[in-house]
Amino acid sequence: MIKDNKEKKTRGRLTLPSEENFYDETIEMLERLGADAIRDSDGTHLPDDLKGLEGVDTYTAYFPARGHNEFAKEVPFEWSRYYLMSSFVTATSEQTSIAFSEDYYPEQIQADYDYDPKEWWEVIDRTTGEVVAPSDWEIDKENDVVTIKSVPFHEYSVTFLAYGVWDPVHMYNYITNDWKNVDKDIPYDVRYPKSSEYVERGLEEFLKENPKTDVVRFTTFFYQFSLIFNKHGLEKHVDWFGYTNSISPEAMIAFEKEYGYKLRPEDIVDQGYYNSTFRVPSKEFLDYIDFQSRFVAQKAKKLVDLCHKYGKKAIMFLGDHWIGTEPYGKYFKEIGLDGVVGSVGDGVTLRLISDIDVPMTEGRFLPYFFPDTFYEGNDPSIEAKDNWVKARRALLRKPLDRIGYGGYLSLAYKFPDFIDYITEVADEFRDIYGKISAGKPHTSATVAILNSWGKMRTWAPYIVAHGKWYKLSYSYIGIMEALSGMDVDVKFINFDDVKNGLDPSIDVIINAGDAYTSFSGGEAFSDPEVLSNIRKFVYEGGGFIGIGEPSAYQANGRFFQLADVLGLDKEIGYSQSNNKYHTTQEESHFITEDLIEDLDFGEMTPNVYSISEDTKIIEFSNHEVHMATNDYGKGRSFYMAGLPYSTQNTRILKRAISYVAHKEDDLKKYYADDLRLEVAAYPEIGKYCVINNSLEEVSSLVYDKDGKASKVSLPGGGIIWFEG
Amino acid sequence: MIKDNKEKKTRGRLTLPSEENFYDETIEMLERLGADAIRDSDGTHLPDDLKGLEGVDTYTAYFPARGHNEFAKEVPFEWSRYYLMSSFVTATSEQTSIAFSEDYYPEQIQADYDYDPKEWWEVIDRTTGEVVAPSDWEIDKENDVVTIKSVPFHEYSVTFLAYGVWDPVHMYNYITNDWKNVDKDIPYDVRYPKSSEYVERGLEEFLKENPKTDVVRFTTFFYQFSLIFNKHGLEKHVDWFGYTNSISPEAMIAFEKEYGYKLRPEDIVDQGYYNSTFRVPSKEFLDYIDFQSRFVAQKAKKLVDLCHKYGKKAIMFLGDHWIGTEPYGKYFKEIGLDGVVGSVGDGVTLRLISDIDVPMTEGRFLPYFFPDTFYEGNDPSIEAKDNWVKARRALLRKPLDRIGYGGYLSLAYKFPDFIDYITEVADEFRDIYGKISAGKPHTSATVAILNSWGKMRTWAPYIVAHGKWYKLSYSYIGIMEALSGMDVDVKFINFDDVKNGLDPSIDVIINAGDAYTSFSGGEAFSDPEVLSNIRKFVYEGGGFIGIGEPSAYQANGRFFQLADVLGLDKEIGYSQSNNKYHTTQEESHFITEDLIEDLDFGEMTPNVYSISEDTKIIEFSNHEVHMATNDYGKGRSFYMAGLPYSTQNTRILKRAISYVAHKEDDLKKYYADDLRLEVAAYPEIGKYCVINNSLEEVSSLVYDKDGKASKVSLPGGGIIWFEG
Repeated sequence: MIKDNKEKKTRGRLTLPSEENFYDETIEMLERLGADAIRDSDGTHLPDDLKGLEGVDTYTAYFPARGHNEFAKEVPFEWSRYYLMSSFVTATSEQTSIAFSEDYYPEQIQADYDYDPKEWWEVIDRTTGEVVAPSDWEIDKENDVVTIKSVPFHEYSVTFLAYGVWDPVHMYNYITNDWKNVDKDIPYDVRYPKSSEYVERGLEEFLKENPKTDVVRFTTFFYQFSLIFNKHGLEKHVDWFGYTNSISPEAMIAFEKEYGYKLRPEDIVDQGYYNSTFRVPSKEFLDYIDFQSRFVAQKAKKLVDLCHKYGKKAIMFLGDHWIGTEPYGKYFKEIGLDGVVGSVGDGVTLRLISDIDVPMTEGRFLPYFFPDTFYEGNDPSIEAKDNWVKARRALLRKPLDRIGYGGYLSLAYKFPDFIDYITEVADEFRDIYGKISAGKPHTSATVAILNSWGKMRTWAPYIVAHGKWYKLSYSYIGIMEALSGMDVDVKFINFDDVKNGLDPSIDVIINAGDAYTSFSGGEAFSDPEVLSNIRKFVYEGGGFIGIGEPSAYQANGRFFQLADVLGLDKEIGYSQSNNKYHTTQEESHFITEDLIEDLDFGEMTPNVYSISEDTKIIEFSNHEVHMATNDYGKGRSFYMAGLPYSTQNTRILKRAISYVAHKEDDLKKYYADDLRLEVAAYPEIGKYCVINNSLEEVSSLVYDKDGKASKVSLPGGGIIWFEG
Repeated sequence: MIKDNKEKKTRGRLTLPSEENFYDETIEMLERLGADAIRDSDGTHLPDDLKGLEGVDTYTAYFPARGHNEFAKEVPFEWSRYYLMSSFVTATSEQTSIAFSEDYYPEQIQADYDYDPKEWWEVIDRTTGEVVAPSDWEIDKENDVVTIKSVPFHEYSVTFLAYGVWDPVHMYNYITNDWKNVDKDIPYDVRYPKSSEYVERGLEEFLKENPKTDVVRFTTFFYQFSLIFNKHGLEKHVDWFGYTNSISPEAMIAFEKEYGYKLRPEDIVDQGYYNSTFRVPSKEFLDYIDFQSRFVAQKAKKLVDLCHKYGKKAIMFLGDHWIGTEPYGKYFKEIGLDGVVGSVGDGVTLRLISDIDVPMTEGRFLPYFFPDTFYEGNDPSIEAKDNWVKARRALLRKPLDRIGYGGYLSLAYKFPDFIDYITEVADEFRDIYGKISAGKPHTSATVAILNSWGKMRTWAPYIVAHGKWYKLSYSYIGIMEALSGMDVDVKFINFDDVKNGLDPSIDVIINAGDAYTSFSGGEAFSDPEVLSNIRKFVYEGGGFIGIGEPSAYQANGRFFQLADVLGLDKEIGYSQSNNKYHTTQEESHFITEDLIEDLDFGEMTPNVYSISEDTKIIEFSNHEVHMATNDYGKGRSFYMAGLPYSTQNTRILKRAISYVAHKEDDLKKYYADDLRLEVAAYPEIGKYCVINNSLEEVSSLVYDKDGKASKVSLPGGGIIWFEG
């Protein structure tokens, strides 16, 4: 039995990992941190005596589509498949051979010859875009080589169907942790009959055999996001939204039945871009997502129902085999999950989890208790603090229901200062949760992020591999991070939402991204209805914020199709002959009143210029506009060349929203002059708090709901609550 | 009579300006500099006693299409016309009024209501690209306002036919020099009968009245390049290649007769880009250039013939009303000119003139003898020296036949040090000319610049307004400047030349420019024949150099369509999921062996990455490749992110050409180790010279034709000749 730690006021809402041969210390830690759940990990097992402790739930990871090699080896035809593309090969004669799989890792990828390649593969002339007739190529199955009747100096690629013979996350963990004597997990595909039957039977056996498990943590369901290794065993292609490992001829046959047309391999391979989330999605790919999501939801529901039948809760890990479960998609709710757990690296990833419509959300906080952080001489609290202040501001907008940690508890145990710190975090979390879960936080505006994906990819824009830095993303993902903890409501809308009539609750539309990506929108901006609806929205008083290359689509004399709204366009060479006189910066501007350091636009956007003497230029350098506002009818726009995350850019975005929404008079309510501080208010409970997002002590004037100022001092990372 | 200056060895090939009340000093200057021609300018007149000096030719400027206001005022219907576009105006209701000419300068531009606007104007919905039916708009001619039946929140523009009532160059000179009591030159259009007749009659009168004129300097012929002023009288649109002032209904009617289809106003206005030279030219525009060039050539020939009839030479100024006389076009030669004179600001502008196929080319050197340079305390020699070292290296490839100066001789006269310097220049020029005009210079390779324009715009790529710096041009025009004085033959080819079979003399193809401009080529790279012909050329041993965004056209999984040749592509977001491992710089490379300062890529090109482990990366920073080479069959490619002009970038380009052409073994023949020196050789006369392009003294090993090195020291700007 776990006793409450006397010094602590609160208990619960916390999950800790544990492992074998660590009983006494686990009990001590559970008490000290006030944890009420304990879990295993991929690679650790909970001993039986740690399961079923009173007041402590037991989470057990369950892998429906891998980790059952005895079964998998019986059904080689049902192993998971990929559509993969060879490299492009330039023909230098009339016959060209392509060793199509040579760039892949043979322990992960094996060509599938069980389905007739002539029917299921595609050889494409990548110089013309045309499919090569199956009669014009031959396969040498022994050597995995396709030989093509080619046109000299055209490029060719082979799209082949492949078995994934080693689960890539298992492979990653295996290699990273240098496991020995571990059988390599073979993934199988529930689209096929035996596997479909087995995932239910296997789960039922597991449920029977694990009476002490309270919560089944599915990791995840059936289809791994794209994670493909190269010939050296290094990551070759990593896409958190990649559907390439969810495909199979069985699925394609079913798709044709439901949708009335045949998918091509190219609909999956997509010229080698594999329908990256940065691609404006094709109709075929959107149909395919819909199709797979519905299928996964139906099948996953059966597993969840089984858990319930055995009196257990079912939660899902947001990651790994999560393809088909887009949690903001149409079918997710039908699965009937009791909760979702996921990794929290910042505010965006917290909101990605906490906004999911399920009874319980849980965030796994960083750092993992792994040797790469927990080694002698290192202070793991540093990463933990940084992580906490980034996550906390998002938490104050929409709390997770639980938090937790992962890795080896025995390792963290050797760092008492770290344990002290996360004890504080746990208490602070429970304190916040206790206060704010009752009521909706104060909201100063409603902001809509407009891109090709809309609601379906809520909090997901600009993500490539979850949690990693990308050169073409960081200047945009800062917008998401800034918004994740800002006192605004955030909606995610697509171009159909614009065409079908904008939600009247929206104060400000944000369109941000590189030209021709799904995030700026590309061809959507050639649609007169999209353009005129946005113009009307702004003209009648709405706000528009463009970052990077908003509304970019070269046509009709414009690069930015909303140049009139922005008061700006981008010079791409064609109009250099037109003199550009409007280059004078405003002496000061409402949006940049609080700055404490140099402006940072990240990757920048070159060659943006003002098209009108009325455009208010906030920053002009290197012969370019990087920040500006424009009045448009009763509405306003704001432009910024890029917005990497920083407390300063967060403040710029907050002020910009206030400005374009014509809410400047309300800015200094629930507000702190020093941009390192933020205020989160809960009118329904009559409280607000001030948080310090920096690690230094800050003193600042802070304004209450009526704009009344008082001096507040907060230590680094501090939080303080007020009535009012 | 002009005596030879005893101290000088040479005389001739030099034109000086003069003016009234400056007789004695003019004679002194003619002698001192060894000038053999004298000329007037726009705004100065030669007094009679300076005309007809023995041994000194008299040049007289003649303006066929302006400067004859007495005639012009008789034919208001024949004044020159423009097609101009209003600003885009966003409709906010179902009726939208556009004051179409309000952004223009009323003293230059007047709406033409003589032709029925309903027939000759276009109102365009710039949101859909569709033309608004003439029945859906009305004109208020009194106020120059068009009122349109509009779709709310679509943008509209009005393309209107306008009279140009003041010649824009005259206007520029008038305003710049603050002229008083000067009648404003009205331009008229020789497409119309009375003007057509008058330009011949007027010229004949002039020829009769000016017996002492030896050379008629046409400035120029009939159609001014686009030079349009805004409502404040400032330049609004300046395009040295702009045809918008060459248009008229008369021309359009004639065009339809010849070409069998009707031009639209939009074919000229081109969404407001006015067919800038950066636009990939449409078929209609190319037809129109052809049409106007033929017309101008035929008419100009008549004027030239008249000059000849009166025993005078006829030369043309390359500028002002030069539209229709593209000197590398099909019809230029037919005009029968005796020469072309133009302004020389650097090597490119020198070659633009000196390569024209006419009996005599003359370059007007900088600085002009104007008060903006010739004021007390300033040393005009500095600009003169800089100009001379840039021009000289080009001169050594293809000499001008004459040089000259412009402005007020009386002003230059007050700067004796400057006079000394240009005396040296004149002697050096005559010395060089005397030596090298006999034989072709040594050539190490033949380089072809590939773009949409080809031969027609020889030495003209990237020019907006002649001689001005442009942000999107300078990183490319450096290529032209470097080549203008390099020991290579330069050809200019277009995509038809690629398709029709590449000239076998070409060693290296250069494709350089921003994506989707005429200089990289845009859609031309969607043509499989273009791609495969270039690939074949390189594969079989040719060289390919790409600068900026070569072969850029997003299709079939590539942004750079020649990614296979370059070993590089540009990430525009779609393939961020594909890991990019090839980021290691070579330790050293043949191309960068001589560097003396940091690399300079100008505007850069972001996000270029290596697609292969075989690509040799020469410079990698900010997560991008900026310089690389790649082997492709027997051929090679070189990539650079941008190449603004510098002596170092010139050396880089020279070594890159040598490298991709597999001529490394010949590099150190006629070569200097120090990149500030260059060698120009003339095997036919058994001489070579070494020039110092810097203004500092330089000592370096210099290699003769056999690669034998010897030490050479040269003062700043120096030149030294050797036998061999």
